[in-house]
Amino acid sequence: MPTIEGLLSPSRTVAELKELRALTGDENGAQRVAFTPLWAVARKWLRGKLAELPGVEVHQDAAGNLWGTLGGASERCLLIGGHIDSVPNGGWLDGCLNVLAGLEVLRRIAAAGTPAVTVRLVDWADEEGARFGRSLFGSSAAAGTLLPADVRNLTDRDGVKLVDAVAEYGVELDRALEARAELRNAAAYLELHIEQGPVLEHLGLPMGAVLGTFGVERHLVTFTGQAAHSGSTPMAHRRDALGGVSKLHLAVREIAVRHGGVGTVGRVVTRPGIVTAVVGEAEMTIDLRHLDAGALAVMFREAREASARIAVEEKLEVAWRRTWEIPPIPFHPELIEMADEAIREVCGVSHRLPSGPLHDAAEVARAGVPTVMLFVQSLRGISHNKIEDTREEHIELSVRALDRLAERAMGWLAYQKDAPGT
Amino acid sequence: MPTIEGLLSPSRTVAELKELRALTGDENGAQRVAFTPLWAVARKWLRGKLAELPGVEVHQDAAGNLWGTLGGASERCLLIGGHIDSVPNGGWLDGCLNVLAGLEVLRRIAAAGTPAVTVRLVDWADEEGARFGRSLFGSSAAAGTLLPADVRNLTDRDGVKLVDAVAEYGVELDRALEARAELRNAAAYLELHIEQGPVLEHLGLPMGAVLGTFGVERHLVTFTGQAAHSGSTPMAHRRDALGGVSKLHLAVREIAVRHGGVGTVGRVVTRPGIVTAVVGEAEMTIDLRHLDAGALAVMFREAREASARIAVEEKLEVAWRRTWEIPPIPFHPELIEMADEAIREVCGVSHRLPSGPLHDAAEVARAGVPTVMLFVQSLRGISHNKIEDTREEHIELSVRALDRLAERAMGWLAYQKDAPGT
Repeated sequence: MPTIEGLLSPSRTVAELKELRALTGDENGAQRVAFTPLWAVARKWLRGKLAELPGVEVHQDAAGNLWGTLGGASERCLLIGGHIDSVPNGGWLDGCLNVLAGLEVLRRIAAAGTPAVTVRLVDWADEEGARFGRSLFGSSAAAGTLLPADVRNLTDRDGVKLVDAVAEYGVELDRALEARAELRNAAAYLELHIEQGPVLEHLGLPMGAVLGTFGVERHLVTFTGQAAHSGSTPMAHRRDALGGVSKLHLAVREIAVRHGGVGTVGRVVTRPGIVTAVVGEAEMTIDLRHLDAGALAVMFREAREASARIAVEEKLEVAWRRTWEIPPIPFHPELIEMADEAIREVCGVSHRLPSGPLHDAAEVARAGVPTVMLFVQSLRGISHNKIEDTREEHIELSVRALDRLAERAMGWLAYQKDAPGT
Repeated sequence: MPTIEGLLSPSRTVAELKELRALTGDENGAQRVAFTPLWAVARKWLRGKLAELPGVEVHQDAAGNLWGTLGGASERCLLIGGHIDSVPNGGWLDGCLNVLAGLEVLRRIAAAGTPAVTVRLVDWADEEGARFGRSLFGSSAAAGTLLPADVRNLTDRDGVKLVDAVAEYGVELDRALEARAELRNAAAYLELHIEQGPVLEHLGLPMGAVLGTFGVERHLVTFTGQAAHSGSTPMAHRRDALGGVSKLHLAVREIAVRHGGVGTVGRVVTRPGIVTAVVGEAEMTIDLRHLDAGALAVMFREAREASARIAVEEKLEVAWRRTWEIPPIPFHPELIEMADEAIREVCGVSHRLPSGPLHDAAEVARAGVPTVMLFVQSLRGISHNKIEDTREEHIELSVRALDRLAERAMGWLAYQKDAPGT
């Protein structure tokens, strides 16, 4: 019998990523938007790969998630997840690296005989939300946080409703929450992903263990002053709404730096928005993120206080409207430790970092399943774009690290007596 | 023979303003856009008023300006000007107050017999530039600064070219500069206008003498950084193009205050402009104005320097593109003195202030004609809007002050021996 290492072929993962790219991408990048024909092509291709694995049962759940299950000595399950869907004109790694690295790990485990615990690969349906603007569809259904009524009438740009689009791919929206059954015996969840940020590249490290996903406070802030002629209105008589935006933008950045989070003003709109008029109304988006709920709350409070102070200084009115929020979701401490060890074993050195973007792992963790993620370095920190890239040697390292982590997690689960899922 | 005061009827001006409003306005305000049918209606109405004045010859010049000429003992001319055209949904005073107050003054002078100098009322064509985006059409033709090739192919929102639109109103574009002949004997130019700003209202004064029109430096400034994910990009790794805009906006305001000018950022555009992305490119308009050319040049230089300093701080690139400029146009010192005296005589107190907006007076002054303007208080500083307003008692004072100024200017011109236009 070959060594465990000998059964794993990380270069096969790189080859399979390229095979998938050729099958479902074009000159503008990946085109595997969930609940569209090319996504179905990718799914069929993945099912073909899973069918070759001895002892692996394959099915699609009520929310459209695809599961490959290798029964083990225990019903307790180790889950390895990812998503094969992409944004339009997407990169060749976001989501599908996770699935294909998981496939390779499952292939290695299956080849080694019946494992101590059940091992399942899951390809979540519609992580990106690219067609209907609702991300994490499949994983939130499995976690039980999806509300079918909230998404039923979401439409794509052609006016097609979500409820009708998913039906074409075997998902009856009103039964989607039945996917919760899939997590019944889940005892650990692992997800590998490209970082989609610049941190690991900046540190010169191939991989990092993810501490959790940031909590997010997302707001629309509007300052109202008085539109006035840019020539006839002396500076002292102005109520320049853009003054509120400029000062609050700089304040938000300082607040983020002070608390070790991130704070972004991504869009500013000026009204009337002409060269010859002082801005009468200015609108800005504010997106605050932190891994710690308390720190996030302080950041939000300080930003509110700053806006009130600035409004007085600038003789403006200010209004806040929350457009979205999610609490921080910390990953499991023991799994983070194991992820760190797996990375050190494969790469020599590891690093712990939070995840700014959300991932399916956040939904699984919210559902109470001990969870961790591995990040592999992104070149230039760019994602959701055809130039998204990661060095092939780093991709191979990441497959090895996921495999090492899976091995550790299986041992951990087999050792636990009164853990969840037993 | 009645006194001079007795011949002047400022309340008639108020009545005529209301008559014109009823004839050419609707529930949304004034609709006398130049080179459109309602403008022609206003013009015909004005011609009817001028036709009632004894000894006044009326004609339209090659650029579409309407002249009413009362021959005097000398060919040297005192000009009183304004514009009967309005923006769409405009106010009841902007432009036509000048014309109708001038009409009343001309009426008074004509009734008093042959004046010492020739007195001419001019209704400039298309001061606002509302249809084709080119303001001061008629006065710039008379001043010789209009370049027909620059405006020929300007189109309105229906695709009609300026050259064709003006032809319908008797203006052959290639001959428009023949209007320069109208200024041949011009020895002084007077224009009354609503302030369109808050200064006089703030000071509690009905009127002010205008020192000249601001010079303007108008630029489009673009900062370029790197678009990046708002969650995955730590603050220290960002190149936030909006940081350039926010800091430069605040710097421009400080520069304007320091030099006693005005500086406005009226429009900001963010790209990609979404809540989840650090701004990769941000564009801002900058409009700097000052009455002193040297101070304006310093303001511009300081703003450029600030942008370069900010670009280094924020790790951005910055590019400037000048979109428009005009030098400051100071009015005539002796006429400013006379304007001040006329205002004090009528209102008890005067004030000297620059004009932020441009006016036809700027073109006439550029052509070398000694020029001054009178401002009458605007309520709330608002113009180009149906809520534009001025107290009726202030309108009446302004007609009296224009009359007193015209009388002084006639005496001044008659007294001059070797002055321009003799």
